[in-house]
Amino acid sequence: MPHPSPLERVRIVLCGTTHPGNIGASARALKTMGLASLYLVSPKHFPAADADAMASGAADLLRTAAVCGSIDEALDGTVFAVACTARSRDLSHVVLTPRETGVRLIWEAARGPVALVFGPEQSGLTGREVGRCAAIGMIPTSPDYSSLNLAAAVQVFAYEVRQAAEGVVSYPQDAYDAANYGDVEFFFRHLEQTLYDIGFLDPMQPKRLMQRLRRLFQRARLEKEEVNILRGILSAAQRPIKRNS
Amino acid sequence: MPHPSPLERVRIVLCGTTHPGNIGASARALKTMGLASLYLVSPKHFPAADADAMASGAADLLRTAAVCGSIDEALDGTVFAVACTARSRDLSHVVLTPRETGVRLIWEAARGPVALVFGPEQSGLTGREVGRCAAIGMIPTSPDYSSLNLAAAVQVFAYEVRQAAEGVVSYPQDAYDAANYGDVEFFFRHLEQTLYDIGFLDPMQPKRLMQRLRRLFQRARLEKEEVNILRGILSAAQRPIKRNS
Repeated sequence: MPHPSPLERVRIVLCGTTHPGNIGASARALKTMGLASLYLVSPKHFPAADADAMASGAADLLRTAAVCGSIDEALDGTVFAVACTARSRDLSHVVLTPRETGVRLIWEAARGPVALVFGPEQSGLTGREVGRCAAIGMIPTSPDYSSLNLAAAVQVFAYEVRQAAEGVVSYPQDAYDAANYGDVEFFFRHLEQTLYDIGFLDPMQPKRLMQRLRRLFQRARLEKEEVNILRGILSAAQRPIKRNS
Repeated sequence: MPHPSPLERVRIVLCGTTHPGNIGASARALKTMGLASLYLVSPKHFPAADADAMASGAADLLRTAAVCGSIDEALDGTVFAVACTARSRDLSHVVLTPRETGVRLIWEAARGPVALVFGPEQSGLTGREVGRCAAIGMIPTSPDYSSLNLAAAVQVFAYEVRQAAEGVVSYPQDAYDAANYGDVEFFFRHLEQTLYDIGFLDPMQPKRLMQRLRRLFQRARLEKEEVNILRGILSAAQRPIKRNS
């Protein structure tokens, strides 16, 4: 069986888009770059006439778009995701340029589906949503005015993804079995519960620590087998407490 | 006197834009990349409320935009121009990717003002307009769907221009005095007239030959002194005919 083309493995996830015209214009931007996999997380209005109008010849992407209730649903099954944002964050995510994002996404796509995640027009992605991704993608802009239109940002990233994919005909056989989004999220929940159980997690500041741990493990790009090992360790750590309770 | 920054020397020329919203969206795209020099050749509707709305925080670029009656007016004073188009042409212009376009424009801008030229949404630039430019810029697209929105194309090229300009603090002293658009156009008119005078130009196919000669000399990036020499040669060639008539 031939491997899928890199571009087929790149999902575009638009979270909480306010203006349906921007969904349509984004679909058009994606189709010009050969991307077709569109996920919409809680769009404000969809389907909508404005979306169809702005999509022009790319209305087929709107018809096949997956409408999801949460970012977790949209990222399910992916092995790597980049949060596209205009603002730098307090906690140290790796920050990639669009060019680096394209190269990295196409590289990671050898292991499975990957995603580019965009937030709402005004507010951008929340810290929680960025925390679901392994890296931040940021477009270098003028210091005087950094407000790219959503579809314009989608066009720049999609352009760089296509640039990175040119020349990549197919992937080599996967060297190892990557843990996917669901596996890793299950591990994070197990980790958080265990940290409570063993009394390590500060109930006053639980999120900050978990964010740091998320970043650590997302950087590591876990394999399925490693997740199993880590969860085995967590279970072992929980056992004495459960026995005592 | 310090040299101007490279980005200050890059003009964006929009020819015959049909939808004012695209002018506004293009202005926004330009401002995010630190470009401010907008030229509008015979826009269908301008000024327009739609343009202001789509410009968002970049409405100042619309207020300072130069509205021109012809591409010659918009390119006056430039030393290098790239025609951005989605279609390949019959005659062999140099075709640059957006990345190459950015690098080349910033390089040429050391000699004087440069331009990126975009045509109307539906039809694109005419052959005559492309002939006014030294190279073609083309965004690599999916073979199935190549129809980028005008402002999206402007965003991609502007992004690459900014990428190319990063790190270029200022230009070295100009090594020689580049001929500008007006000098070169004056030379082309002189050349065409001379070719008629000496009976070389086929009156049935005058344009095709002139297009080839335009490309040849535009590739050469003429200096002012060279234009003077060439025009001296043309005058010398015309002299015997004028004496005889």
